[in-house]
Amino acid sequence: MQYHVDGELHDADEATVNVRDRGFLYGDAAFETLRAYGGDLFEWEAHARRLRETCELLELDHGLTEDDLRRRIDETLAANDLKDAYVRLSVTRGVQPGKLTPSEDVDPTVVVIVKELPRGGRGGTPVWDDPATLQTVRTQRVADRAIPAKAKTHNYLNGILARLELRATGADEALMLDADGHLAEGATSNLFFADGQALKTPSLDGPVLPGVTRSVVVDLARSEEIPIEEGTYTLDDVRNADEVFLTNTTWEVRPVETVDGLDVESGPVTRLLSKLYDERVEEFY
Amino acid sequence: MQYHVDGELHDADEATVNVRDRGFLYGDAAFETLRAYGGDLFEWEAHARRLRETCELLELDHGLTEDDLRRRIDETLAANDLKDAYVRLSVTRGVQPGKLTPSEDVDPTVVVIVKELPRGGRGGTPVWDDPATLQTVRTQRVADRAIPAKAKTHNYLNGILARLELRATGADEALMLDADGHLAEGATSNLFFADGQALKTPSLDGPVLPGVTRSVVVDLARSEEIPIEEGTYTLDDVRNADEVFLTNTTWEVRPVETVDGLDVESGPVTRLLSKLYDERVEEFY
Repeated sequence: MQYHVDGELHDADEATVNVRDRGFLYGDAAFETLRAYGGDLFEWEAHARRLRETCELLELDHGLTEDDLRRRIDETLAANDLKDAYVRLSVTRGVQPGKLTPSEDVDPTVVVIVKELPRGGRGGTPVWDDPATLQTVRTQRVADRAIPAKAKTHNYLNGILARLELRATGADEALMLDADGHLAEGATSNLFFADGQALKTPSLDGPVLPGVTRSVVVDLARSEEIPIEEGTYTLDDVRNADEVFLTNTTWEVRPVETVDGLDVESGPVTRLLSKLYDERVEEFY
Repeated sequence: MQYHVDGELHDADEATVNVRDRGFLYGDAAFETLRAYGGDLFEWEAHARRLRETCELLELDHGLTEDDLRRRIDETLAANDLKDAYVRLSVTRGVQPGKLTPSEDVDPTVVVIVKELPRGGRGGTPVWDDPATLQTVRTQRVADRAIPAKAKTHNYLNGILARLELRATGADEALMLDADGHLAEGATSNLFFADGQALKTPSLDGPVLPGVTRSVVVDLARSEEIPIEEGTYTLDDVRNADEVFLTNTTWEVRPVETVDGLDVESGPVTRLLSKLYDERVEEFY
């Protein structure tokens, strides 16, 4: 496997960053997880926009065009002869003199990591083996006033601490609440649930990542005239729901089969949106 | 300059970690900042203890002894012929298969970075050029329930966002509050202030790093019978104080000359504790 680092392709074992790179020292870096289907990047514009927003929040002016970033991803996919793949694009603030306070003068480090990821959907198999088992954890989502949730960065310990709580439980995704006890999201996924009224998902007013897959699913629901509501919810709301599913770029639409050990039915809304998502991917490439 | 990475010394430009190292991907790493005076590490036991506590919180069982970690630091200092130095010791969870969820099977990456740092104190000059100018920022300290403040990790964006707010102000340290509006600490320093009653510092019950220098200063104050109080304070308390100073390993005791643009007097408590700290360093080596 070859990865792209700082403008060049390297064998995976030799793909490295300097130990003084701020991406390593402080997690001072923006990133995106993308999927390639049939050799092309799904929802590239949405990912490029979110990366731009993360960099704006971090005041990280990397000076690269989106075409340049895309070219590095395409080169990495081509070098590995990959059509269906997981892609991780990172842009760090690079090496700077001084310590914590960033300099405005940025020589960024751009890293592209790829991995084969057979597509799911029609005629494929999903990347997850089973529906998700979801477990509420004590670790709270970081508040927006501390680090805005819409910044997707290399500071991922909050999600790691949440996942560590699952070691004793056997669950595979952590359901995280905000400081007020409202539903936020999974460690690496957005949450959706359906009850008799609507398909519901925590609003971006809370500490919730504006997931690209989340946005596609909301659009698909609207186009099918499934009532959709973005709001503020409690754990009871999801425990009493008829259907629950999670979304992220690699899982796509992943049904949930238990919440805190309680069974959740698989249902028609999840199946419909999953099919519509697969069709969207089919149309795309 | 030579740095120590994964058991070996490397020239600084060739001191690297793999792009799949979790320290880079997620900031999934513990670290300590230390000072060497006269070739010996100041407060090594306290730093080693805090590193152990961080690793316990991260459930990162690196399997190395504290003697081994110390030996790597000593080798790095010797290779660079440094007696008075800044030292950064990092232990990451290394490269692991899978994605966010950590595996219990850890092959850690240990990194030691050093830099010459002439000692301050008696007969020396402090590492800071001037007293600190402190500015309250909107960025709140991350809550303990999201990431415990006593974990010193490579997730430092919270402090970086605080420091970025200073760009427009000319101040050089950010004063951070918790979600309830109580004083927490600086982006990289602990806060002390003295009024007519006592020397005061925010309690470790809040989101406050248990700084090693903070602890030394509290001990020095007790040994001199200066009344010391660890409590919960507001911005008004520090604005109305007679003296304010900051502590961290590199700054040692650093007086504050303005808080949010308002002048603070330099005073006897700060000067006394600064002298006592210098004496403690003198005695040590």
